[in-house]
Amino acid sequence: MEKRKIIIDCDPGHDDAIALMMAYNNPKLDLLGITIVAGNQTLEKTRQNGLNVCQALNIKVPVYAGMSLPMVREQVVAANVHGETGLDGPVFEPLKIKAEEKHAITYIIETLMTSDNDITLVPIGPLSNIAMAMRIEPRIIPKIKEIVLMGGAYAIGNFTPSAEFNFFADPEAAHVVFTSGVPIVMMGLDLTNQTVCTEEVIKRMEAIGNKASALFCDIMRFVLKTQNEEFGLSGGPLHDATCIAYLTDPSLFILESMYTAIDIKSELCYGRTVCDVLDVLKKPHNSKVGMKIDVDEFWNMVERSIKSYQ
Amino acid sequence: MEKRKIIIDCDPGHDDAIALMMAYNNPKLDLLGITIVAGNQTLEKTRQNGLNVCQALNIKVPVYAGMSLPMVREQVVAANVHGETGLDGPVFEPLKIKAEEKHAITYIIETLMTSDNDITLVPIGPLSNIAMAMRIEPRIIPKIKEIVLMGGAYAIGNFTPSAEFNFFADPEAAHVVFTSGVPIVMMGLDLTNQTVCTEEVIKRMEAIGNKASALFCDIMRFVLKTQNEEFGLSGGPLHDATCIAYLTDPSLFILESMYTAIDIKSELCYGRTVCDVLDVLKKPHNSKVGMKIDVDEFWNMVERSIKSYQ
Amino acid sequence: MEKRKIIIDCDPGHDDAIALMMAYNNPKLDLLGITIVAGNQTLEKTRQNGLNVCQALNIKVPVYAGMSLPMVREQVVAANVHGETGLDGPVFEPLKIKAEEKHAITYIIETLMTSDNDITLVPIGPLSNIAMAMRIEPRIIPKIKEIVLMGGAYAIGNFTPSAEFNFFADPEAAHVVFTSGVPIVMMGLDLTNQTVCTEEVIKRMEAIGNKASALFCDIMRFVLKTQNEEFGLSGGPLHDATCIAYLTDPSLFILESMYTAIDIKSELCYGRTVCDVLDVLKKPHNSKVGMKIDVDEFWNMVERSIKSYQ
Amino acid sequence: MEKRKIIIDCDPGHDDAIALMMAYNNPKLDLLGITIVAGNQTLEKTRQNGLNVCQALNIKVPVYAGMSLPMVREQVVAANVHGETGLDGPVFEPLKIKAEEKHAITYIIETLMTSDNDITLVPIGPLSNIAMAMRIEPRIIPKIKEIVLMGGAYAIGNFTPSAEFNFFADPEAAHVVFTSGVPIVMMGLDLTNQTVCTEEVIKRMEAIGNKASALFCDIMRFVLKTQNEEFGLSGGPLHDATCIAYLTDPSLFILESMYTAIDIKSELCYGRTVCDVLDVLKKPHNSKVGMKIDVDEFWNMVERSIKSYQ
Repeated sequence: MEKRKIIIDCDPGHDDAIALMMAYNNPKLDLLGITIVAGNQTLEKTRQNGLNVCQALNIKVPVYAGMSLPMVREQVVAANVHGETGLDGPVFEPLKIKAEEKHAITYIIETLMTSDNDITLVPIGPLSNIAMAMRIEPRIIPKIKEIVLMGGAYAIGNFTPSAEFNFFADPEAAHVVFTSGVPIVMMGLDLTNQTVCTEEVIKRMEAIGNKASALFCDIMRFVLKTQNEEFGLSGGPLHDATCIAYLTDPSLFILESMYTAIDIKSELCYGRTVCDVLDVLKKPHNSKVGMKIDVDEFWNMVERSIKSYQ
Repeated sequence: MEKRKIIIDCDPGHDDAIALMMAYNNPKLDLLGITIVAGNQTLEKTRQNGLNVCQALNIKVPVYAGMSLPMVREQVVAANVHGETGLDGPVFEPLKIKAEEKHAITYIIETLMTSDNDITLVPIGPLSNIAMAMRIEPRIIPKIKEIVLMGGAYAIGNFTPSAEFNFFADPEAAHVVFTSGVPIVMMGLDLTNQTVCTEEVIKRMEAIGNKASALFCDIMRFVLKTQNEEFGLSGGPLHDATCIAYLTDPSLFILESMYTAIDIKSELCYGRTVCDVLDVLKKPHNSKVGMKIDVDEFWNMVERSIKSYQ
Repeated sequence: MEKRKIIIDCDPGHDDAIALMMAYNNPKLDLLGITIVAGNQTLEKTRQNGLNVCQALNIKVPVYAGMSLPMVREQVVAANVHGETGLDGPVFEPLKIKAEEKHAITYIIETLMTSDNDITLVPIGPLSNIAMAMRIEPRIIPKIKEIVLMGGAYAIGNFTPSAEFNFFADPEAAHVVFTSGVPIVMMGLDLTNQTVCTEEVIKRMEAIGNKASALFCDIMRFVLKTQNEEFGLSGGPLHDATCIAYLTDPSLFILESMYTAIDIKSELCYGRTVCDVLDVLKKPHNSKVGMKIDVDEFWNMVERSIKSYQ
Repeated sequence: MEKRKIIIDCDPGHDDAIALMMAYNNPKLDLLGITIVAGNQTLEKTRQNGLNVCQALNIKVPVYAGMSLPMVREQVVAANVHGETGLDGPVFEPLKIKAEEKHAITYIIETLMTSDNDITLVPIGPLSNIAMAMRIEPRIIPKIKEIVLMGGAYAIGNFTPSAEFNFFADPEAAHVVFTSGVPIVMMGLDLTNQTVCTEEVIKRMEAIGNKASALFCDIMRFVLKTQNEEFGLSGGPLHDATCIAYLTDPSLFILESMYTAIDIKSELCYGRTVCDVLDVLKKPHNSKVGMKIDVDEFWNMVERSIKSYQ
């Protein structure tokens, strides 16, 4: 079977790092490139973190830096959750690899325009790079096979009562993407919060005993600590990694098709994903939203992924 | 023990009718008056329905008609759920009782101003009457002991993807009430949707075999039918009745204290209750929001209430 | 010729006082009642000021106090322009007259409901009383002959860059009135700012030498001073008085018919009168907006009015 | 004296064409490049029109095509004013020149980054190109000497009651530019509507009798016709040309320094320039807004410009 071609657009970030780990060495996925966006931290830091993860795991995929700012709003970062570096916790070797010269938006546009319409975009940070690319070169839109993203929430948010961080960090970009017509799979907090990585899970992965396992545990122990301090939770969710899990084995997921809009006008609900779960608006559906994940199988998949780095 | 003094402000409405049934004949509650507001249907119809229920159950409490319109927005009604009369289903005798001459707002203001600060308002429809009273006579605000209301939702709405009907029908009124400083207990859809009245429940109540039982079953069979048709549900929730259950026995409920704001600016989220469940805003709490109800004990309470009409 | 029946709804206020002066003793107008609203200052102060003006000029018309708060928003007052009392400048005798017991809203509703559809409302403060009356008793709407009001601006505001004070002080009320279907004549800042009362005008009126003249000059000297300090102007406009001038002699005015909406959603433009001067929206017209006033004739009218108090 | 270096960013467009005419052959200005944006018509058409004007007048400046869409909103064009081609009226020879390959945004970024901070941007269409460049490469912001733009209105709009077309066509872009910190000179409708090109003016320019004169008259006769039909005006304003006039001789203009914000949240006021003319907000000023132009001298300048094409 052919591997599914993907570009991961990320703002590493702890769960971003796990997503990269799970996407590389993955028998189902062909990771063409990694594009970086500001989000969990500034672009300088998220690029650094992305390169650090690639070097640590020997991930040989080109990395492209993109937007250092959101499209329209003033910048916010999630230092409360991801720390001062954006990937607090693990200690990395000095960097020997570099990002490409080309801007991430240029890479996305050129790659899509010369593709056979077979590339899936996997944005797991703010949607700034993707939306900017769509507006600069609208002809890429019909060339995108699908967008499988982490962001939003149909119930409650995490960065504000109404909005999830990725979408709050660039609501206008989310609006551009959700009105683009590209088929979207959305893994929102409602689903991703089911993947709580407890100390028990961390110990299980630790037992594998390779470099991927060590990185996983350094990362998730920090997440566990901040999630506990910020939200009183007894474990940290692996938000971004659910997108890779879905691309690897969609049968682990229950999705529902629905209409989703982004609120870019409200002060109280700025960045909210207004998901019409009950279909009261009877509008054409533009998204499949993750409702439930088979958590046991998800951890099995994480374990297999870590083992693949032997 | 002294009975708790309450005024029920309602827009009957199917679940409003059950709330009235449970509030009267209630050893814990002293139902001083019933005020009517437009909501589920026009004022003319909700007043008629309120009187019909009082007459059918011999509820001897004065009924006052209030606002026929919301404060600011154009009127919406919930004919999709409550039918053309607003209380489709049961057949009532011709009316022999009448509403009082006095306007509901005048009744609320006069009653509160002459009270010993011991009256709880129980609004289970749009908040138009309560908010108008607060703005016409702000001195009533410190005289209200507590507001125990049905409305809102911290997760998803029912009339729009973002908003619950009562609050969508008069968002500005909800804003006035939630910024008034009065202590609020909010039974939103997150809680009320737990009280699903299935055919099995209806049969249990039917077995009681009195007039209250007959009315209950006529009402809930219609609700079951429309909830099934509108939302694909296998039973209808008893939304408004949860407020009476709470006032009768708060130990059946888990509430959480939090800050709640109403979105009156957004088009997509108009009327949404922005409940800061995770306390990310660190704002002073103005509401206790219903999270969980002991459903078995709730049905026992409903059964006892119906039996009291022997 | 029959006198035109009017109710003045005001928040005195300097220019309100002049409007009252011009409306009483007016051969064209039958001033049925004066209703008071919070606005330029709190209700307690505007009521006091209204009574002071009536007593000083021996205006024998019943005065009714109304809304002490706007409908929905938090209260703002214009102490920057009208001073701590709301009518700083003149010194009044101790009050011997009182406001009526009846609430202004009740007075407005009862008077309109028993009228022959021949009463014009003249609101020259925030529209709280009028809008509340319309929502409490919508049957008054077709009974209002016309509303001739001071408020709004199609160009720039005065209290915010977008909004004029009367409308900014209760935008939701303005929205209710402008969507009611009642014919509206709007004297906005664009017109009222043409009536600049300079020291020269004040001296001309001073020469009349009666009590009305003295009151006029005490008031307008204070206005001149604050307008100069706040906005760098060399004279104070007689905003509210233009409504009385229009009712007395509409031939002094150029109005244009247009569609006007009130922005109640925007933060930056909250309370703005969105006047479709160029008719780009092609919506049904709901207002006649004052564009130009014959200023010379206006001062002649003011002079005649002052002289009538001999 | 050194010529002032400018890049014109335009969406030709009738008045855009006149602006290009006046900028080239101008002893005070060094027109480095012309960037094209969608606006008055689609990008395909505005690019074609820009090239047509350059070819007709032998303007030897590189032309770069940019954004075909606004940043966030759905596209609107001004076919009502500029016709189906976006430059209806004149008839052009078949095109022999072409736009550059490079994207306008890339050109703007590269040119600014290698400049001595001495380049003025002159956007006379929607601000999509400028704002996108600022967000993709924020380091250009301190390199821009000044932005002299046509757009907005502190009084009334032309495309909606609240908004001028250029800003309504991409409000989010305008927001990005006005919050960037770059010094801005804004020629809004309040000023540009003073430059009414009547039949008399057209005849005066026609008398010059060269190719520039012919183009001017073909263009302005069409403008006169549509302005008359759309807005009932007896002449068409030369909006965009005022920016070139200002750069050529600022002494013809009265500007006022003020704070200006763009409303991107409101439905009724979407795209409005909220100009704090009276400085009621006391915010730091970010714009100098054109209040008055010496119209006679403006026509003299237009005449000299046309004559320069002999």
